[in-house]
Amino acid sequence: MQIAILAHEKFPGRAKTALGVLRYADYDVEAVLDRDSAGDRVADHVPDVQDAPIVAGMDEVGDVDALLIGIAPIGGGFDESWRDDVRTALERGCDVIAGLHYFLEEDEEFAALAAENDCELWDVRKPHEELTVSQGAAGDVDAEVVLTVGTDCSVGKMTVSMELARDAREAGYDAAVIPTGQTGIMIEGWGNPIDRVVSDFTAGAVEEMILEKGDEHDYLFVEGQGSIVHPAYSAVTCGILHGSMADQLVLCHEAGKEAIHGYESFSLPSIPSYVDRYEDLAEPVSDATVTAGALNTSGLEDDDAARDAVGEYADAIDAPAADPIRFGTDDLLEALLE
Amino acid sequence: MQIAILAHEKFPGRAKTALGVLRYADYDVEAVLDRDSAGDRVADHVPDVQDAPIVAGMDEVGDVDALLIGIAPIGGGFDESWRDDVRTALERGCDVIAGLHYFLEEDEEFAALAAENDCELWDVRKPHEELTVSQGAAGDVDAEVVLTVGTDCSVGKMTVSMELARDAREAGYDAAVIPTGQTGIMIEGWGNPIDRVVSDFTAGAVEEMILEKGDEHDYLFVEGQGSIVHPAYSAVTCGILHGSMADQLVLCHEAGKEAIHGYESFSLPSIPSYVDRYEDLAEPVSDATVTAGALNTSGLEDDDAARDAVGEYADAIDAPAADPIRFGTDDLLEALLE
Repeated sequence: MQIAILAHEKFPGRAKTALGVLRYADYDVEAVLDRDSAGDRVADHVPDVQDAPIVAGMDEVGDVDALLIGIAPIGGGFDESWRDDVRTALERGCDVIAGLHYFLEEDEEFAALAAENDCELWDVRKPHEELTVSQGAAGDVDAEVVLTVGTDCSVGKMTVSMELARDAREAGYDAAVIPTGQTGIMIEGWGNPIDRVVSDFTAGAVEEMILEKGDEHDYLFVEGQGSIVHPAYSAVTCGILHGSMADQLVLCHEAGKEAIHGYESFSLPSIPSYVDRYEDLAEPVSDATVTAGALNTSGLEDDDAARDAVGEYADAIDAPAADPIRFGTDDLLEALLE
Repeated sequence: MQIAILAHEKFPGRAKTALGVLRYADYDVEAVLDRDSAGDRVADHVPDVQDAPIVAGMDEVGDVDALLIGIAPIGGGFDESWRDDVRTALERGCDVIAGLHYFLEEDEEFAALAAENDCELWDVRKPHEELTVSQGAAGDVDAEVVLTVGTDCSVGKMTVSMELARDAREAGYDAAVIPTGQTGIMIEGWGNPIDRVVSDFTAGAVEEMILEKGDEHDYLFVEGQGSIVHPAYSAVTCGILHGSMADQLVLCHEAGKEAIHGYESFSLPSIPSYVDRYEDLAEPVSDATVTAGALNTSGLEDDDAARDAVGEYADAIDAPAADPIRFGTDDLLEALLE
C-alpha cells in the first residue's frame, strides 16, 4: 500500500506517529507533508528509516492509496490547517487514516466526501463496541508477556516494543506486538486504542488482545502507554499493567530527562524508585519484574557518552539495559527471552 | 422531589445505589420496586434510612416525579425485566434517572416515550462532551482534599465520603462532596461519572470537579472508586488518586474480606501494604497520606467484635479508624479536620 503522511510543522521531532510508521510499518511512503520543511527529504532529518520527499501539501503528492495523519497534538484535536489536505485526499479517492481523539468519520464534510468518492475514513482511536471489564484472565495464556513501561510519556515505549518483537522474530522466536496506541495500531493493522476506551474497560481492552493472541505466540510484546507517575495519564498506564498481567517489564527512559514533559513542575522520581513502583503496583495482580531497561540516548551526540549513560542506567535499575536504536537489542533479548 | 426507586430482586443487599439514595439524597422516596419483597417496607430490611413501601411494579406507585434505577449489575447493562416499569413511568410523565452503562436516551422506545410525554431521561453515567486531559492543577485549590480509597470495590467509599461530609457540615465546617460514581451523582445532583469517561481523561475529569469547587469550600470529600489492586478497575482508582491530588486519604475496608469480590483467585494484600501502596503511588503527584481508616463491620453481629475489629484495623493502618455507620464519624473527623 502506498501512502502519504501528514506531519505539518512537526517533522521529525514532534511527529512520533509519522516516524513510527516510516520505521516499522509495511507501507510504501510516497511523501511526508510538512509545510515547514518542504523541499527536504526524510533522509536529511532521519537517516535510518525509509526515505521520501517532504512536500508542502497533498496537491504535490503523486498517486497514493491513503493519507495518514502522522502527528497527534496534546488533546488529540483536528487542526483546521490540515483540512485542505484531507479534502484533497478524499476528492482523489484516497482513504484517510487518523489516530486523533477527533473522529474524521464524525466530520460532516469528510464523511460526505468519503461516501461520494468511495473511500474509507479509518479512525484508529475509535474503540469497538464490545469492550467490557477485565476478567483478570490474561495470566492464563501460554505466551510470556513483556510490557514496556516508562518514566514518562514519549520516552520510546512503542519503539522499544517494535524493535524487540522484530529482532526476536529475526532471531527465530515466535513473537508478536500487542498494540495499544494509535501508532502501534497503524503499524500492526489492528488493536484497541487503550487511551480512548471507557475508563472502566481499560484493563479489559488490554486483556481482550492478550487472550486473542496469547496462545498463538511464545512472546507478546505489549506496547505500554504513559507513566505511573504521570499526573494526567497514569490511569491508562495502570490499566495496561494490570490488564496485561505482564510477566516481565522493560523500563524505558530518556537520558537526561528530569521532569514530566508538559508538566514541568512535576519532577521525575529517582530511577530505582520506578522499579519498585511498577513491581509493587503489579504485584497483587501479576509477578511482573523489571528484567531490562531501554534508554533513549538520542539527545547525546557522543557514542561514548551514550554508552556511559546506558551503563549508569543499567546500574540504577539493577538489570541489563541498552539503547535499542543506537546499540541494538541483543543485550535486552538475552535478558528477556528464555 | 418525589421518586420511586427500582431495585428488583436486589434490595437491599445488592442495591448500593438504592440504599445510598434512601440514606443521603434530598428526595422523598414514595416506593421501592422489588418484585421479590413486595409487601414489605424498607424499614423491615434497613432501619436507619427513610422508610417507604416496597411494591412489585411501577403500576402500584402513586404520584411521583421520577423513577430512579437503583441497581447496577456487573457490566452495567439494562435488564429487560425492567422495561415495563420504565415504560409505565414515562407514559405517566415521570422522568427516569439511571446510572447504567446502557444509556436510556439511546433506547428508541424510551427516547420516543420521553419525547411524547415531555419527560427527561437522565443518564448520569453519560459524560459531558468537554472533558479533557488533566493539567495537574488540582493541588492549587484552597480546599483540603480528602479522598476515600479502598481495599476493594464495594467496601463503603461512597458511604464514608457522604457520612464525613454531612457530619463535617453539621459540626460547622464548610465541606462538600465530589461525586465520581452513579450513586454519588444521583445524590448530589451533579458530577462526572469517572468510570465511564475516556481513559485518557480519567484524571482530568476529577480535576475539573476539584477546580470547580475547590475555592468555594474548605474541605472536599472525594468519592473514591475501585481499588489500586483490582485486576479490572485499578485504572479508575489511579486516575482519581492523581487527578484529585488528594491531601489526605481515608482507607476503606470491609471486616473479614480476604479476596477481590468477583475475582476470588486474587487475594487482598496485607492491610499495612495498602497504606504504602496508596501513598507511594500518590507521592510523585501529591503528598497524600492515609490519615484515617473506615471499616465496614456490617458483617459482624456483635458490637464488641466490631469494636475489636476497628481497633485491629487502626493498628494495621497506624491511624485512627472507625465504622462510621455503626459508631459515628467523630474519631475520623478529629483526625481529618484541622
